[in-house]
Amino acid sequence: MAQKVYLSNYEFKEALNKYLSEISSVFLNKEVINTEEGLGRVIAQAVYSKISSPFYNCSAMDGIALHSSKTIGASEKHPIVLEEGKDYIVVDTGDPVPKEYDCVIMVEDIVNIAENRIQIYKSAAPWQNIRPLGEDIVEKQLIVPSGHTVRPVDIGAMLAGGVNTIEVYKKPLVGIIPTGTEIVEPGSDLKVGDIIDFNSRTFSAQVIEYGGTPKRYGIVKDNYEILKETLKKAVSECDIVIINAGSSAGREDFTSDLIADLGKVYVHGIAIKPGKPTIMGRINNKPVLGIPGYPVSAYIIMEKVLKKIVENYQGLKTKEPQKVDAILSRRIMSSLKHLEFVRMKLGYVGNKIIATPLSRGAGATMSLVRADGTLEVPQNVEGIEAGTKVEISLMRDMEEIKNTIVCIGSHDPILDVLSDMLHLSSKHYYLSSAHTGSMGGIMALKNEETHIAPIHLLDMETGEYNISYINKYLKNKDIALIKVVKRIQGLMVQKGNPLSLKSISDISEKNVRFVNRQRGAGTRLLLDYYLKKLHISPDQINGYEREEFTHLSVAAAVANGDVDCGLGVYSAADMMGLDFIPVCNEEYDFAVPVQYLELDIIKELLKVMKSSEFLKKLDELGGYDYSDICNIIY
Amino acid sequence: MAQKVYLSNYEFKEALNKYLSEISSVFLNKEVINTEEGLGRVIAQAVYSKISSPFYNCSAMDGIALHSSKTIGASEKHPIVLEEGKDYIVVDTGDPVPKEYDCVIMVEDIVNIAENRIQIYKSAAPWQNIRPLGEDIVEKQLIVPSGHTVRPVDIGAMLAGGVNTIEVYKKPLVGIIPTGTEIVEPGSDLKVGDIIDFNSRTFSAQVIEYGGTPKRYGIVKDNYEILKETLKKAVSECDIVIINAGSSAGREDFTSDLIADLGKVYVHGIAIKPGKPTIMGRINNKPVLGIPGYPVSAYIIMEKVLKKIVENYQGLKTKEPQKVDAILSRRIMSSLKHLEFVRMKLGYVGNKIIATPLSRGAGATMSLVRADGTLEVPQNVEGIEAGTKVEISLMRDMEEIKNTIVCIGSHDPILDVLSDMLHLSSKHYYLSSAHTGSMGGIMALKNEETHIAPIHLLDMETGEYNISYINKYLKNKDIALIKVVKRIQGLMVQKGNPLSLKSISDISEKNVRFVNRQRGAGTRLLLDYYLKKLHISPDQINGYEREEFTHLSVAAAVANGDVDCGLGVYSAADMMGLDFIPVCNEEYDFAVPVQYLELDIIKELLKVMKSSEFLKKLDELGGYDYSDICNIIY
Repeated sequence: MAQKVYLSNYEFKEALNKYLSEISSVFLNKEVINTEEGLGRVIAQAVYSKISSPFYNCSAMDGIALHSSKTIGASEKHPIVLEEGKDYIVVDTGDPVPKEYDCVIMVEDIVNIAENRIQIYKSAAPWQNIRPLGEDIVEKQLIVPSGHTVRPVDIGAMLAGGVNTIEVYKKPLVGIIPTGTEIVEPGSDLKVGDIIDFNSRTFSAQVIEYGGTPKRYGIVKDNYEILKETLKKAVSECDIVIINAGSSAGREDFTSDLIADLGKVYVHGIAIKPGKPTIMGRINNKPVLGIPGYPVSAYIIMEKVLKKIVENYQGLKTKEPQKVDAILSRRIMSSLKHLEFVRMKLGYVGNKIIATPLSRGAGATMSLVRADGTLEVPQNVEGIEAGTKVEISLMRDMEEIKNTIVCIGSHDPILDVLSDMLHLSSKHYYLSSAHTGSMGGIMALKNEETHIAPIHLLDMETGEYNISYINKYLKNKDIALIKVVKRIQGLMVQKGNPLSLKSISDISEKNVRFVNRQRGAGTRLLLDYYLKKLHISPDQINGYEREEFTHLSVAAAVANGDVDCGLGVYSAADMMGLDFIPVCNEEYDFAVPVQYLELDIIKELLKVMKSSEFLKKLDELGGYDYSDICNIIY
Repeated sequence: MAQKVYLSNYEFKEALNKYLSEISSVFLNKEVINTEEGLGRVIAQAVYSKISSPFYNCSAMDGIALHSSKTIGASEKHPIVLEEGKDYIVVDTGDPVPKEYDCVIMVEDIVNIAENRIQIYKSAAPWQNIRPLGEDIVEKQLIVPSGHTVRPVDIGAMLAGGVNTIEVYKKPLVGIIPTGTEIVEPGSDLKVGDIIDFNSRTFSAQVIEYGGTPKRYGIVKDNYEILKETLKKAVSECDIVIINAGSSAGREDFTSDLIADLGKVYVHGIAIKPGKPTIMGRINNKPVLGIPGYPVSAYIIMEKVLKKIVENYQGLKTKEPQKVDAILSRRIMSSLKHLEFVRMKLGYVGNKIIATPLSRGAGATMSLVRADGTLEVPQNVEGIEAGTKVEISLMRDMEEIKNTIVCIGSHDPILDVLSDMLHLSSKHYYLSSAHTGSMGGIMALKNEETHIAPIHLLDMETGEYNISYINKYLKNKDIALIKVVKRIQGLMVQKGNPLSLKSISDISEKNVRFVNRQRGAGTRLLLDYYLKKLHISPDQINGYEREEFTHLSVAAAVANGDVDCGLGVYSAADMMGLDFIPVCNEEYDFAVPVQYLELDIIKELLKVMKSSEFLKKLDELGGYDYSDICNIIY
């Protein structure tokens, strides 16, 4: 049986600083490169110009160069005639002005009177229209100081100052070793148990963003000796090496032993969540990190540890993320055992920024894609109450967040389509939806956390949809209902309907394996409505307690054979190639505070919803009746 | 004689929008690339997952997988014994859970009692510790919408969702053609009249920053036929082509004719400063720009025109620069003829942001290097008064600007050294100096525009330095004087002193060509002091009216043979390899408001000034006596 080794639990910042100081001798190596290849590099040695720019006196105008003494006394009444070659030469802008001349008269102030003769009507002052040597850059002047990160304009100025090579800090080559017997390359024929190696590709892109150069090695199986050889090779070829994963304490987690074998482990296990099973070590004076396998843990460790190493390696200033204050919409519980980074969705609703925690699972890649920022919950804090003002480190531009429609409530596949089409129609607008179920949408409207709540709530007494719920739960608010679609709800079953299900009563009678939706979802309320009507008790349903959050998740569970049946919309069943037994038609609408109907972004959304492209897409998805779309009921 | 063709003067934004709409058919070409190479690319076709992630039910823990029914009734008093293979299998985190099992018990809750037998003490709930299929990403779920710019996390999520290739907008290849008979490659042996081609290198770096790929062509002489062949080649190879320069209306400016010859010119001349002689055209459905030769004009046109084209080409969102409000320190005059972009230096002094215009010359590359932002003066505005609140588009992080010591006043080469050493000593601190002369420094203190004013002002009556000026001009302020150096002022003359100058009186007696410093410079006041003492009138000095702004510029003019002599400090003469005739010792100090002495950044500066590295550098520069350095007189 697996043995359990316990990791240490170093306080994060302390461990990181200790580690950075242990490896500080590897930082700030210098190299000389061509100035023109310097973009983004950090200057190691202050750059002083080698020549002046311009390095000779030159004309600032198109015109003639001459000595000012030849022009004394010229006036409208007494013009002076000058001869080319004898008195002046013709110059264009930038042409050198010979030493015997001290001024330039611009072409507009000259009258040609013969092939080589011109006339002038006023005298010229010494040095007029001449760009003197060094006007822009004087020889030996400081152009950029040490520690400066090179921009395009710096490249221009350094080359203009005769500086063709520069001394910069070396940019680290970061070796990335994906490990694991179960890991396979993207594009492989997948079999159950395989895990696609996407982490190493995310790491490569992160390394580029941090200012390093990534070098990805092939996947190494969980074999100590092979891994050891690969690690030795990577350490000899690269400046920094990261190993993913095997950094925990399971049966095949020997990254830590391996680093200790070849070098030294400073830290194994830090008080951070996600990301605890992290290893910080060194082999042959090269930093070596063991990065956890879960993608969110890996992301956090890359951001919080590797980024700092890459920055320190070449003297890059740390780019701190922009921060913003927001109101926490839900209580967050954390543990005193660790510092936690929680991914947050932000919504700019009614001039307030609302922050809602996303899935905190270490495997939730989509929580990173969907996140607008992160909230740091310190180690000594057990929780933060809803309504608290919190500081969020942004992962997305505030401008984008302000131009995003927040849509919290019931899920339907058309929300994905709308999100895409809105952004296509107006590239500054976004729609972001969170799937909390219809009642979650009603509560979000009540708490002023959302612009729109998609709902499909059947009043069991009147048989009417949505309106009675708004009247009951949002009676103090001015809410409009944008009609969207009538959609077909029904039983999703495997292709060919192997269990020959015909209706909801079959679920209990045939004891089929069912999967339910989460509490508060309109679809669950619909199930409950039918169960009550049919006098079926929930505990007669095998799987009533098993919850999924979207129609697609339910359909996926059926398609995979995990369960035999679930309740959901036609389009989701159709997307997954399932059979579908219609149960009822229901009305899926958007509840929205009346004042938001005036927002440009909501008007744009309505425009998209009325467009023929969108309606065509609804036809393709199937199971939607959009005859009332965009009718507004106040 | 040169003929003058007048350019058109289209209103800038109108011309740009017209042009962008003319060439809009070339934008948004699509291509398919590998997902892992997608960083920074713009999604052309919304990405939906192809598989779920995980694509099978898997264990969320290290432990055993089994069916929950086997655990019913387990308790501390009545543990249940289970047998490996028959009742359970051992699983690590991520391992698949076979369909016959529905839960995982974590290793911590298990007691091994024999080789293949374990004991449990509580029952397990169905689905506990299982990551169900699709927990992270459900098949056919939207991962990123069209128009989204790919980040590292998106690459991970797309690969996890089985999406190995993506459709993105094509990234443009931008051809850059430097032209001009006088243009030479960096590193060439320079002769008078040569101009180093640094523009095309700056352009390359700018194109990379904008999100395009640059392709630089060799320098083309001003020959219509050769240029035509190169342009045809570039148009056939690239997506966008820029020609630098020949875009004006001088003798050899035939870029416009050439574009018209091969295609169409939409605009030649826009009401923008700098940057008027710009050409916007098209050849074979490829955008072709003629970019002015002056580096600042070129920079502005790249930023305002090419950047937009590169962004529109691939559907990138325009990254607007951050903006900040600042108080204008000097009056700016502009013309009704054009929209003007003025480079600005910002100073964060006493909780106010002060904006000071930098050199407005189109050739002032260093004004771009030194700029913190730009001020846009609209075409219909003739000027902006000092003290006005203006909006600045930042070119540098506000955080950096806030950590910068503003130093306005007299120039000495040691300011360059201090700027470099301060940043080396503490990488978050900067020193930025503007050379306005000592009296300019006094005025900047008076107007609260600077932290520090370097001054060397001789009281002609008492012979005392600096203090009497502070008492006179800054009597209402609490100013301290940080002693810096005594430095030697003297006559800088060519190596070997060919005119055998011995003293200031020789300048007028021998009628030597002199170069002066600007009004308000302490060195000019020093000259005036001696002239008065020697009863020499300024008009007896040949070159009294010719002004340079720094010691180095004066030294450069002497070194170049433009003039025979100038007054300045020893270190500058020495740097340029000149001979030096000492005239006097003077005291060069920093005047600073007393309250700023408490700022950490000023304390850090004093630390640097007292360091042995700095004093060693003073010895190397020569001519400095630092026995009083960092003594503070209140």
